[in-house]
Amino acid sequence: MATAGKVIKCKAAVAWEPNKPLVIEEIEVAPPQANEVRIKIVATGVCHTDLYHLFEGMHKDGFPAVLGHEGAGIVESVGPGVTEFQPGDKVIPLFTSQCRECRFCKNPNTNKCDKGWVSERPQAMSSADTRFTCKGKKVLQFVGTSTFSEYTVLNQMAVAKIDPAAPLDKVCLLGCGVCTGYGAAVNTAKRNILTSNPNLKCCVDPSLFYFRWNRAPHVLCLDWGLWVWLQSWAARLQEPAGLSLLTSIQRSLRRQRCGAFGATDFVNPKDHNKPINKVLSEMTDGGVDYSLECVGNVEVMRSALESCIGGWGVSVIVGWTDLHDISFRPVQLISGRTWKGSMFGGFKGKDGVPQMVKAYLDKKVKLDEFITHNMTLAQVNDAIELMKHGKWLIVRVGTGSPLVMLL
Amino acid sequence: MATAGKVIKCKAAVAWEPNKPLVIEEIEVAPPQANEVRIKIVATGVCHTDLYHLFEGMHKDGFPAVLGHEGAGIVESVGPGVTEFQPGDKVIPLFTSQCRECRFCKNPNTNKCDKGWVSERPQAMSSADTRFTCKGKKVLQFVGTSTFSEYTVLNQMAVAKIDPAAPLDKVCLLGCGVCTGYGAAVNTAKRNILTSNPNLKCCVDPSLFYFRWNRAPHVLCLDWGLWVWLQSWAARLQEPAGLSLLTSIQRSLRRQRCGAFGATDFVNPKDHNKPINKVLSEMTDGGVDYSLECVGNVEVMRSALESCIGGWGVSVIVGWTDLHDISFRPVQLISGRTWKGSMFGGFKGKDGVPQMVKAYLDKKVKLDEFITHNMTLAQVNDAIELMKHGKWLIVRVGTGSPLVMLL
Repeated sequence: MATAGKVIKCKAAVAWEPNKPLVIEEIEVAPPQANEVRIKIVATGVCHTDLYHLFEGMHKDGFPAVLGHEGAGIVESVGPGVTEFQPGDKVIPLFTSQCRECRFCKNPNTNKCDKGWVSERPQAMSSADTRFTCKGKKVLQFVGTSTFSEYTVLNQMAVAKIDPAAPLDKVCLLGCGVCTGYGAAVNTAKRNILTSNPNLKCCVDPSLFYFRWNRAPHVLCLDWGLWVWLQSWAARLQEPAGLSLLTSIQRSLRRQRCGAFGATDFVNPKDHNKPINKVLSEMTDGGVDYSLECVGNVEVMRSALESCIGGWGVSVIVGWTDLHDISFRPVQLISGRTWKGSMFGGFKGKDGVPQMVKAYLDKKVKLDEFITHNMTLAQVNDAIELMKHGKWLIVRVGTGSPLVMLL
Repeated sequence: MATAGKVIKCKAAVAWEPNKPLVIEEIEVAPPQANEVRIKIVATGVCHTDLYHLFEGMHKDGFPAVLGHEGAGIVESVGPGVTEFQPGDKVIPLFTSQCRECRFCKNPNTNKCDKGWVSERPQAMSSADTRFTCKGKKVLQFVGTSTFSEYTVLNQMAVAKIDPAAPLDKVCLLGCGVCTGYGAAVNTAKRNILTSNPNLKCCVDPSLFYFRWNRAPHVLCLDWGLWVWLQSWAARLQEPAGLSLLTSIQRSLRRQRCGAFGATDFVNPKDHNKPINKVLSEMTDGGVDYSLECVGNVEVMRSALESCIGGWGVSVIVGWTDLHDISFRPVQLISGRTWKGSMFGGFKGKDGVPQMVKAYLDKKVKLDEFITHNMTLAQVNDAIELMKHGKWLIVRVGTGSPLVMLL
């Protein structure tokens, strides 16, 4: 392209300091260096992790920065040594890199990678080596992605090439939310089943067969919506085959939407005068088989663990926070529960995201149903306000077209 | 036997109230009722869980009681409906029952059972329906076993019949400690490997193969001995095939003994001026693959979790406590660690204990190496004092012979 090798001036939403609205600025995006890819971002979601960094994390070392990590775009140009990508490729930026060379990448049981911002500056959630400048100042790249910009530059180990037929304003959701929720159930909660025989698609764990023989599979939606900023990542959850009973943490406003994804029961803690884990225990004869905490709140994490059945219950932490400790009684684990965490749903990004895009194109994974509104990059602060009040949205940047929001 | 159907008068160590020495009393043991077995106890270990109840738990509802849960004996008589046992059978009492009928017993992935004291009075760690009386008062049965008595009565669902060739003063250790530590590693930490194919004895998890190809298997012993009452259950750990790297929490006095069990490295937190998880992370290039907390201390539990490597590290809580909350940062799990708990090493008692006895008789599992001293039931308070100061012992009751103690 005509811009290859040159600095690109474009619009981006810059977070100059914590707890302040983003500012739409003209920034300079330097050309990609060795092994790097410069991407024109077409669409991006706004995720609570952006807010976490901006309003709650308050990592002083993380500013100024361009936020955003749930995007999709088109390769504009590539740096020396890049052979996997060429201009025009449709891609999804990855906040979890996959270098394919480190001991984690070589292990099929984890999507951790020794490279990228996580190893460099995990507390600041950013990398210091950035191609962004604005008004003469270096601007940091948030979690290695920075999708609230018309252009961004990533190392090729953190870019997934996707099917050219993919609609970018839909599949951007696979850059974080849908992969995170879906994978937490399918990859993390059931890792032992899926990885013990990679060719086996049905579940082989005898306990699962037992569940399926003796208990009616159904999906249970919980309304743990005590905090207006709660995000129900589990609401994004597709119905995974073989999971007999699943807790999704869900605000009552979204019941209809959850029903479209297969939810059969809804529980609102506000409707009960006892702890929600007691309510669930009574509903499910001792507790749920799987629970997923998806809001980044340590009280909900504890409650999700305690809602699992002793003996075999598995609770997975999906929501991100590192601000507070969780507390719990060890007997919860000693009595046979397992507590796990999930980052990006356990997907190795370069491998998993293209597969999820294909699954969407093949109509095996739902994305459109999450989307209700469109906004523009200029409206990003309005989008953030909506999210702070429990809304869910996709900001489509750069095109000026209306954007998509999940209620 | 001549005593069948009659009340037996015998000696027992009675805990009349919390925080007081046990009192050797003459008690009455009523005949077994339907589905019950009366057992002459030959040998028993003293375990920290006895102390926990006596001095730390202070469950007022749990007194007076006969403590002890790591015993072995001979069936004296059986009640109506008992067909599995007959007088003269060698048996080990089980604090985790196996009714074979409940949903837990039918599930191969848990050793929980819906029956017994755990369901009845978990907080008091005792059952109210007891065959003991002393001085006209009912005396409770501690965790369904009460092995600090010459005779005790159990429901047959909580009794394991063992090989007649088994030496009871050795295999009593399989009533708790050795099964608990061994099983926590072999059953709980690696459950997904062992249960995905019950016929497969080598490890099939690709990550384990990876570990074994790339890292030298060794056993790492930690000295976390900041508390005089620490019990190193992991010191009882046999060397499990296929576990590449194992943390056992170990007092330095026991190094030689641990070496006999295959330990290759020893770490004492007192030798370092930074947190032990940092020390271990440096020693092991990011953290250990498995850690086992075996002392029932919530700070050690947190440290054990944090000592695991992100991505695939598995930490197992073995030590019992329900007095305090554990606190930890959720990011420890989100970055790919798994936290589990283990009760009685995950063994279903009636199935697993006889197998472990056979493994001992076949010289595949070590027991004798744990034993250094003998004492009598009359010396039980001395034994408890020794344990409170970090010693480990077996009290052989009823015979008056010297007893066995692990340093």
